[in-house]
Amino acid sequence: MALALSLGRRGQGNTWPNPAVGCVLVREGRIVGRGWTQPGGRPHAEPMALRQAGPLARGATAYVSLEPCSHYGQTPPCAKALIEAGVARVVAPFADLDPRVEGRGFAMLREAGIEVATGLMTGEAARDLEGFFLNRAQGRPRITLKLALSLDGKIATATGESQWITGPEARREVHAMRMRHDAVMVGAGTARIDDPSLTVRGLGAKRQPVRVVVSRRIDLPLLGTLARSAREVPVWICHGRDADGKLVSAWKELGATLIPCALQGRQLDILSVMQGLGSHGLTRVFCEGGGALAATLLGADLVDELIVMSAGVLLGAEGRPGLGAMGIDKLSEAPRLTLAEERRIGPDMMTRWTRPTA
Amino acid sequence: MALALSLGRRGQGNTWPNPAVGCVLVREGRIVGRGWTQPGGRPHAEPMALRQAGPLARGATAYVSLEPCSHYGQTPPCAKALIEAGVARVVAPFADLDPRVEGRGFAMLREAGIEVATGLMTGEAARDLEGFFLNRAQGRPRITLKLALSLDGKIATATGESQWITGPEARREVHAMRMRHDAVMVGAGTARIDDPSLTVRGLGAKRQPVRVVVSRRIDLPLLGTLARSAREVPVWICHGRDADGKLVSAWKELGATLIPCALQGRQLDILSVMQGLGSHGLTRVFCEGGGALAATLLGADLVDELIVMSAGVLLGAEGRPGLGAMGIDKLSEAPRLTLAEERRIGPDMMTRWTRPTA
Ligand SMILES: NC(=O)c1ccc[n+]([C@@H]2O[C@H](COP(=O)([O-])OP(=O)(O)OC[C@H]3O[C@@H](n4cnc5c(N)ncnc54)[C@H](OP(=O)(O)O)[C@@H]3O)[C@@H](O)[C@H]2O)c1
Ligand SMILES: NC(=O)c1ccc[n+]([C@@H]2O[C@H](COP(=O)([O-])OP(=O)(O)OC[C@H]3O[C@@H](n4cnc5c(N)ncnc54)[C@H](OP(=O)(O)O)[C@@H]3O)[C@@H](O)[C@H]2O)c1
Repeated sequence: MALALSLGRRGQGNTWPNPAVGCVLVREGRIVGRGWTQPGGRPHAEPMALRQAGPLARGATAYVSLEPCSHYGQTPPCAKALIEAGVARVVAPFADLDPRVEGRGFAMLREAGIEVATGLMTGEAARDLEGFFLNRAQGRPRITLKLALSLDGKIATATGESQWITGPEARREVHAMRMRHDAVMVGAGTARIDDPSLTVRGLGAKRQPVRVVVSRRIDLPLLGTLARSAREVPVWICHGRDADGKLVSAWKELGATLIPCALQGRQLDILSVMQGLGSHGLTRVFCEGGGALAATLLGADLVDELIVMSAGVLLGAEGRPGLGAMGIDKLSEAPRLTLAEERRIGPDMMTRWTRPTA
Repeated sequence: MALALSLGRRGQGNTWPNPAVGCVLVREGRIVGRGWTQPGGRPHAEPMALRQAGPLARGATAYVSLEPCSHYGQTPPCAKALIEAGVARVVAPFADLDPRVEGRGFAMLREAGIEVATGLMTGEAARDLEGFFLNRAQGRPRITLKLALSLDGKIATATGESQWITGPEARREVHAMRMRHDAVMVGAGTARIDDPSLTVRGLGAKRQPVRVVVSRRIDLPLLGTLARSAREVPVWICHGRDADGKLVSAWKELGATLIPCALQGRQLDILSVMQGLGSHGLTRVFCEGGGALAATLLGADLVDELIVMSAGVLLGAEGRPGLGAMGIDKLSEAPRLTLAEERRIGPDMMTRWTRPTA
């Protein structure tokens, strides 16, 4: 099952709106097939593994990181494929939350006389598929927030110099993290000031994550890097319904996808932004700031995972804060996260924090 | 030698102005005596170990973390004691920097026919004795700066609430760190606002570190915790020569030690403060902020070790910064430190950073 989960993770970032699933076929103690959801979400993990196993699938146990699907979509249901291949036993952590499946895959298998076991490694599987489940259950993607900070929590000097606070190893790791997400998201401030490309570079990525910018009035440079490259790598703009129609058309013409969202006060309603991204199929979003968007996400308890890259540099109180205003008076109001992982990356320190399990 | 070093560390915080030395006597592969510098600096490590070994010291090898002393102070020289005990061989990392010793201990031993070996574990020994060496070479103590911060580098909410950002485990560790230093130092701002006691609590400490406050005009509460307890645990005040004579007398009467320092602009000259502490015998000082003093120390490259306790909480840009203004425009001007250690402490993350070895 651990192998099935790790195979499943190979698909992360590439399978949305589908979950990234892994499948291992074991016969007489020997692995006869391995598969994972392919880019774009098809084929699923099970047919990949069955194809590899061929006739050896007969009588085998299939370890799958999620309930096999039971519905006819672009492909026939995986449960049917497992039955036809003569698999004897299916082990999966839990049922799919997708209303089109929800236990029907397991039922189909059982009806065909296949033994079904669940409950194995549910915690890890739930973490890996969290984005997919959040999308199905709450209509929003899972959010990873990354902050690259000096030891005193700054992202730039008073004059705005920010290149580079962290070392090349940490920056490379950030590219690897981008790759495991469906989309990279930034606030309009970052898009205006940094003119970033937000692509995965130097890792041989075959598929680029969608680039999402949050800007009420679409106040973004029409000649910037994102605008110029919107045809090669998707650019999605979450904007207010009050944005200038001419700007909407101009960005559409550039190749961008426009997602109108509701307002809350003078800014975009972040829940509406999340729903917009969810309904467009995103399951895993990697937010890289800036400070204002990060503060909004944290304040709304929408950060499922926080990555802090800490560099051993000190910029002092005049430096630009990595996190914007949050309006917190009492410590008890402040978001608290749980340390999940700590690791040196080159000269820098990476810590990973997740929402406390209540 | 590793054991001698670790014994030596037992004395840290208790032996100033003397170095915290460790000594192990080994005869025929068996440890026959162990000793370390006793509180107040006397007796030294060697006589402690010799006393334990008794007649077994004859023919033994003495591992000492610093050259044995050669001068008559309050006690006869350790080199002489080793000779009289009939020790056959002395192993030490390096010669003492103290002008009263500087190789004379080794010479004395060699003249008596004792084999002397040096060069073992010099790096670690130099780190352990850094405070003593800095005091001898530069007339200043070694500085450890501790910052307990939220993930975004704050020490309190906008309204000043700061208890508690880190958990009880991290706070206990801070008390253990205080114990391994000769003195705990804070800026006047912290003394005024927090009214701290700065003592080691809950660890059965037999000796309390000196409490140092840096305040130009001695603008400190005369009825505060420090004032009230100055007779039990030493309070030293580094102040400007322009401080009010009445305040100087009042604090002397309370039992405080007053250290007049030079000015730089409108603040105390931090180098003069360091020299004052050094000349009063301090070798290891633990600075616990606040932000202004921390920024001054970092800006003057006086921080030999930085401890960051990071709690998984986010306070936002209005929170109080843990580090004051540093006047840094370019990233290249910012102090850079090297990651020396990372460790979880309860729910928090501790990272230790040291000055890069050029
Ligand atoms: N070193 C790093 O790792 C790093 C990473 C990222 C950013 N940065 C720095 O961060 C700075 C920009 O940060 P920033 O804080 O000014 O801007 P930001 O967070 O990137 O973007 C904020 C903007 O997003 C739009 N927005 C719309 N609805 C929002 C909502 N509900 N919450 C928050 N924002 C919303 C607003 O622009 P509209 O008016 O257009 O709607 C707002 O001004 C740049 O200096 C950049 O260099 C550094
Ligand atoms: N949570 C924590 O871990 C923690 C720890 C410590 C402090 N704090 C917080 O920090 C705040 C106080 O910090 P702060 O930055 O205002 O004050 P600070 O650093 O504690 O003290 C600054 C004061 O020290 C004196 N000083 C003299 N010479 C100086 C020099 N060369 N450099 C710097 N200071 C010099 C000045 O007072 P004079 O005019 O009297 O000379 C100056 O105002 C408090 O709110 C406290 O709660 C939090």
